Amino acid sequence: MKKSAADALIIPRWLVPVDGKKSVLADHCVVVQDQKIDAILTVEQARMKYPDSPETILDNHVLIPGLVNCHTHAAMSLFRGIADDIPLKPWLENHIWPLEARLVDAEFVAVGARLAIAEMITSGATCFNDMYFFPDVVAAQAEAAGMRAVVGLIMLDFPTAWGSGPAEYLSKGLRLADELKLSTLVSPAFAPHAPYTVSDEPLRQIRVLADELDLPIHMHIHETCQETEQSIDQFGLRPLERLSQLGLLSPRLLAVHMTHLLAEEIQTCAELGVNIVHCPEANLKLGSGISPIKQCLDNGINVALGTDGAASNNDLNLLGEMRTAALLAKGASMDARAVTAWQALEMATINGARALNLDHVCGSLEKGKSADMIAVDLSALHCQPVYNPVSQIVYSASREQITHSWIEGRLLMENSRLTRIDADELNEQVQRISAFIKPVQ
Amino acid sequence: MKKSAADALIIPRWLVPVDGKKSVLADHCVVVQDQKIDAILTVEQARMKYPDSPETILDNHVLIPGLVNCHTHAAMSLFRGIADDIPLKPWLENHIWPLEARLVDAEFVAVGARLAIAEMITSGATCFNDMYFFPDVVAAQAEAAGMRAVVGLIMLDFPTAWGSGPAEYLSKGLRLADELKLSTLVSPAFAPHAPYTVSDEPLRQIRVLADELDLPIHMHIHETCQETEQSIDQFGLRPLERLSQLGLLSPRLLAVHMTHLLAEEIQTCAELGVNIVHCPEANLKLGSGISPIKQCLDNGINVALGTDGAASNNDLNLLGEMRTAALLAKGASMDARAVTAWQALEMATINGARALNLDHVCGSLEKGKSADMIAVDLSALHCQPVYNPVSQIVYSASREQITHSWIEGRLLMENSRLTRIDADELNEQVQRISAFIKPVQ
Repeated sequence: MKKSAADALIIPRWLVPVDGKKSVLADHCVVVQDQKIDAILTVEQARMKYPDSPETILDNHVLIPGLVNCHTHAAMSLFRGIADDIPLKPWLENHIWPLEARLVDAEFVAVGARLAIAEMITSGATCFNDMYFFPDVVAAQAEAAGMRAVVGLIMLDFPTAWGSGPAEYLSKGLRLADELKLSTLVSPAFAPHAPYTVSDEPLRQIRVLADELDLPIHMHIHETCQETEQSIDQFGLRPLERLSQLGLLSPRLLAVHMTHLLAEEIQTCAELGVNIVHCPEANLKLGSGISPIKQCLDNGINVALGTDGAASNNDLNLLGEMRTAALLAKGASMDARAVTAWQALEMATINGARALNLDHVCGSLEKGKSADMIAVDLSALHCQPVYNPVSQIVYSASREQITHSWIEGRLLMENSRLTRIDADELNEQVQRISAFIKPVQ
Repeated sequence: MKKSAADALIIPRWLVPVDGKKSVLADHCVVVQDQKIDAILTVEQARMKYPDSPETILDNHVLIPGLVNCHTHAAMSLFRGIADDIPLKPWLENHIWPLEARLVDAEFVAVGARLAIAEMITSGATCFNDMYFFPDVVAAQAEAAGMRAVVGLIMLDFPTAWGSGPAEYLSKGLRLADELKLSTLVSPAFAPHAPYTVSDEPLRQIRVLADELDLPIHMHIHETCQETEQSIDQFGLRPLERLSQLGLLSPRLLAVHMTHLLAEEIQTCAELGVNIVHCPEANLKLGSGISPIKQCLDNGINVALGTDGAASNNDLNLLGEMRTAALLAKGASMDARAVTAWQALEMATINGARALNLDHVCGSLEKGKSADMIAVDLSALHCQPVYNPVSQIVYSASREQITHSWIEGRLLMENSRLTRIDADELNEQVQRISAFIKPVQ
């Protein structure tokens, strides 16, 4: 029997599916059925095929896939602006770690993650890849908000509020991974923090388990030149060499930061299918360096984008991160052709989904994928005139132009209003907790 | 006789006067009288002294000096996004210059400048330094909008729609300078385009006239390494050396871009009081290079900020430019302490006013200066929590958090609505003109 109604027809002025063909479609719409994209059709075809469908008409908007934030520490939003203009090592050792030791518990993570999720939805992300303590709490917050997430099963050599050491981190992580099996929104990844905080044995365990459970591995790698120097002192190897010997360089790996890379390391990552997660703003803000993204892309590496945590950015705005990535790659390589607007958009969508092994689920607007998408209103004066909507998305629009967000076909933001998070209530919770947080002097 | 009313008391939650003392004042207000700042007082003192004054209470806001955009080509807003991801030389020669030759006339400049002024007001600028054809039209648009501006008396060796060559550019420029003598809002500057487009004789004339008329000189200098190489070929000198011999290096000069600088050139600029106008986003986008701003500041040079035109940015958002300047300086110097949030705010305000020789008029909130100021609402979730409002302004806020703008005490934007520009009418004019503009193929 022919169905005469789809769940929704989303009819924007421009539709940019990010399908690898640089399509910018006019007079097209997305047909949503059972939380999925049933088809991309002309408006005429869709109305003929599904005449009784509710329509959402977005006359000034471009519809694109939801953005995929491939690296963040969501709960750190509560540390936004608490310690600026300080290099990574003293920033961590004298500010962030002492604050975390004193403050981080399940409630802190719940409120911080909720604040981050609200911010990420309003700035276009429909999926985020998190690394923090209490990943069970982050998972619950994402699920409650209707947000897609990959939560990191954090691993460190030293104890924190979340675990006493590698054995407990692992057992708690595996329990959570098991609990998440039924979720369509939230999935786990192994998250060994960094080469300098996790020793060989837990890394070997993670490699074996990641293969068994078919999970990604999410890790900070080569964030600063101090990290590579320290590794040479300690192991006689650069961190990537050590991880290579441990068998960790593979398409499972999301290697975050990667600011200091030799030409042969880029080659190796390309050959082994390592995904790089570029976090340009955090790398700049901490003075860590500038990742050679043009060379990585030229070598065929899958490069995704992340905001990092709000304590080192200081926002979780992946729309803005696209712009920074495009501009910075041009400036750093002194080649205006490096990271075009299209490449930046791909990095923030399909490349991110691919890095997380979610490209069968999201990352582009294509038949069969989940209806994870956002609408960007280009009618603001600072986006006029519009010669090329993709240029406007990457180079001119602010996050405030993002008016609608759908995940699994459900509206999480409509006309710039969050539908499932009470912003006033959230704000009260944030004020209550942050009133007790004082910057370290 | 004691006056019991001021024209207005502006009472924000935080007041950041940018007075060189890093003050962040609570319970303070700005007393506006006769378009000027009469005093900064505690709210209690102000209410006692001026009990009958109208009050504007801004409970979630930080009040700061209006931003000073020290380099733009306002009318080029009509070319926003028309040619991206292309290096400076082919971008100019194959795209921008052919489009300008075909399209630029007084009406184009009027509409383009109005669009730019609307965008600049909404993104926090209360003053802009322009360089383009038909500066008389730009001046009229600024005056009509109530916007402070310095209009460049453009000089080029070759003819354009605005003039047949140096003699006519100069005579038209001097006539305009004379006409602007009565304006409190708009003033002129000499604007020789660049070392590679203006020969020695007109530059000598400009130097003499700038001294006579006490005007700034606004010029693109060392934008790319090709520019310095070409100058060595043609003159046997780097552009700065040539300008030095012509007597142009002085506190009058706003040297825009300056991406390629030798250590001794930085020293010379510091000794001679040259102002540098840093345009980080345009420099990145065109792949021109990264100006060594940390070294310039460390040497005591007055560094201001500019957006450049919207064709190479692609916005005129000085709030965002502060953020890029702070992040980029840290990344490029690999020192997170480079360009702190405070320094970025000073670059975008008082340093800009100083470069334009307008620091007796604007650039900080101090008694006797014009009431040029903006209010930034920090209540958005992505600005929470607020430990330090200056960090939030530079690193977290979007231009959309700017809700109020005053120039000479007059409200140009109130609760995010432009008061003197009809946005719908402007948008219609933009659509009408841009409909005839096609990207060069």
